[in-house]
Amino acid sequence: MRTDIRQRLTERDFNRSIMRWFMKQVGNPRISVRLWNGDEFNVTEERPVGCMEIRDRRVLLDMLRSSSVGFGESYAKGLLEIHGDFLAFINEISAALTQKRADDYWIPKIQSMLYALRRINTLDRSQHNVHHHYDLGNDFYKLWLDERMVYTCAYYDTPEATLDEAQVAKLDHVCHKLKLRPGQKVIEAGCGWGALAMHMAEHYGVNVLAYNNSKEQVAYAREKAAELGLDDRVTFVEDDYRKIEDRCDAFVSVGMLEHVGRSHYQTLGALIKRSLKPDGLALIHTIGRSYPARMDPWIVKHIFPGGHAPSLSEMMTIFEPHRFSVLDVENLRPHYARTCAAWLKNFDAVADKVKDMYSEEFARMWRLYLAGSSAGFQSGTLQLFQVLFAPRANNSVPWTREYQYLED
Amino acid sequence: MRTDIRQRLTERDFNRSIMRWFMKQVGNPRISVRLWNGDEFNVTEERPVGCMEIRDRRVLLDMLRSSSVGFGESYAKGLLEIHGDFLAFINEISAALTQKRADDYWIPKIQSMLYALRRINTLDRSQHNVHHHYDLGNDFYKLWLDERMVYTCAYYDTPEATLDEAQVAKLDHVCHKLKLRPGQKVIEAGCGWGALAMHMAEHYGVNVLAYNNSKEQVAYAREKAAELGLDDRVTFVEDDYRKIEDRCDAFVSVGMLEHVGRSHYQTLGALIKRSLKPDGLALIHTIGRSYPARMDPWIVKHIFPGGHAPSLSEMMTIFEPHRFSVLDVENLRPHYARTCAAWLKNFDAVADKVKDMYSEEFARMWRLYLAGSSAGFQSGTLQLFQVLFAPRANNSVPWTREYQYLED
Repeated sequence: MRTDIRQRLTERDFNRSIMRWFMKQVGNPRISVRLWNGDEFNVTEERPVGCMEIRDRRVLLDMLRSSSVGFGESYAKGLLEIHGDFLAFINEISAALTQKRADDYWIPKIQSMLYALRRINTLDRSQHNVHHHYDLGNDFYKLWLDERMVYTCAYYDTPEATLDEAQVAKLDHVCHKLKLRPGQKVIEAGCGWGALAMHMAEHYGVNVLAYNNSKEQVAYAREKAAELGLDDRVTFVEDDYRKIEDRCDAFVSVGMLEHVGRSHYQTLGALIKRSLKPDGLALIHTIGRSYPARMDPWIVKHIFPGGHAPSLSEMMTIFEPHRFSVLDVENLRPHYARTCAAWLKNFDAVADKVKDMYSEEFARMWRLYLAGSSAGFQSGTLQLFQVLFAPRANNSVPWTREYQYLED
Repeated sequence: MRTDIRQRLTERDFNRSIMRWFMKQVGNPRISVRLWNGDEFNVTEERPVGCMEIRDRRVLLDMLRSSSVGFGESYAKGLLEIHGDFLAFINEISAALTQKRADDYWIPKIQSMLYALRRINTLDRSQHNVHHHYDLGNDFYKLWLDERMVYTCAYYDTPEATLDEAQVAKLDHVCHKLKLRPGQKVIEAGCGWGALAMHMAEHYGVNVLAYNNSKEQVAYAREKAAELGLDDRVTFVEDDYRKIEDRCDAFVSVGMLEHVGRSHYQTLGALIKRSLKPDGLALIHTIGRSYPARMDPWIVKHIFPGGHAPSLSEMMTIFEPHRFSVLDVENLRPHYARTCAAWLKNFDAVADKVKDMYSEEFARMWRLYLAGSSAGFQSGTLQLFQVLFAPRANNSVPWTREYQYLED
């Protein structure tokens, strides 16, 4: 009888000790932890933001092996549950982690370099990577994106803006920066479901050649363009961005660089140099980092194979070898936190449909991905850069940035 | 008799051939060349922008040794003369050179790295470098700068702005970006004659601690602050930026980074991290490059010893190791071309006074430096970056940049 009690106590203390050690590694978030045996405790003395229930002791081992993959896979499988406000909980974890790992520089930088060397995104592999994410089916994305199907950071130019409004504001913000004029030729690399290409043609009177190697997205975009009577001004090409050969007045890429891979930045720069007229303007909009680091391992494994969010120094590999003048960099980090939170809200409202279309595991995985992304932008782990640039000798660049903020 | 003619012809052809070869190296500018023997020819078939008169054959040898140092020193000594519009001539040379050397990347990058390794700006050496340029005497700079003595890129927010107005607009542009609020504490590194420090205190109600290791400039700034009754809100410290120890709400440095030297960027970043409160904003305004390259050798030898204009990838060494979020980069290149042209115009109007104060050689050297700088910005060889940044976890950063363009 006595032995039994002592043993149970020891086991409890042992589990708690491991869990406390683990929580220290992730920066002691203000949460509570409930273990498979019902034991529950608070990580800090402050009021917990939420409770993490670990339903199987195997989860602990998986998280010790890789905190990110272990946490993500266990959550998707339901072996780990979050009680309380989901996004608030994920935000708390992300903020604690950011605080904890504030001083690493060389280790993530070297990891990022090694990752770049390992991941060469050949044409085939890019096709595969894109297929993995974007060909999940247009019906899936329609469920929770805005009406125009814009799957990149929105721009909340007023605090009251809805997601739909903020996506239109983003499209206009990009068009303003590029100073589009009627009759110009625009090349877009990685056009998603075509919202920007169609917006540019419809509202700025330009001709657009838009590349994308996702079959499903291009099919949707073509149908939509025909519906809107824009198919004479917008051509959607189902191919890799590396196949671009035309010349243009403006080059734009929104949310594609994340899939390009660091090893290919110089190629991308050469391609833009070749395509862009000497008095042209170009814009790249991408998820980034405040320092070089590889993407979260769980995200790369399950969500974005081959993905990389570059720091500005890494991005400069696109511009500097070709002596582009970087004219303007804007960081829209808080806007992406809000965009992802809006997507999560929409997603949660249709979670049952998603479960029916795919599986419960898939739905939980995506829920974590959306919340985790929002939290990453909120904590500063992720950044969002819009970089406007031009050939170095282009002296027709806008004189000040006031034009970006004037009413049309 | 015959031999004599043939010999003269041969010598003429020989000189022309060398000169033509040399002109090809600098990209065949549309100029004419007059040699010491009176022989004159056009470099291209187009109408020449001006004429370069080489008064001594030694100049040719000096230019072959180092085109930049040879040209600069020969011009200063009057062994080389420019006929026609001086700035137009220098612009033409700079544009041709920019075109010619458009594809080098690794050679200038390696030169820039080697230069950084060779030039360690110790406290003593920085003191010496700064003394060389900024302690030429306040009376000298008063002759041709604006009334506030602002010796950095102006901001021409309207096309009709005068130099005086554009310098005030620049001070306000910097203050707007930093979202200064009354009562805040601001640290300025490298404050020149104190114009920005005094402007911030007078118009934005902040308290400023301003560092500068130029004796002459600090003396002037202190006198001016006392005159304006601002000495209770602005403290000028005659010391190196590395001695900064205080904490602040905003950190600003305008036109100092050029003197810091690449090897010290990480130190500067660490210093800002230490000084800046977690919800603070910081701004660095500096001459830059579209790619890594060392400064012009003549400029380093005669004008800015220890100077370096960084590319953005080089600048990231300040921010990324400390995980600052880069919020906003603005390139004001065309504004600096115009600012330097305005300084040149002022300078030319007082050239006789400068000759009396120093020497004709000094006056010519400075004339070339001002014209060459204007041309460098015009051709894109030089860039001007304003970088706004913040600690990564600062979530009180401005939501959009519209605030920079609203009327006060």
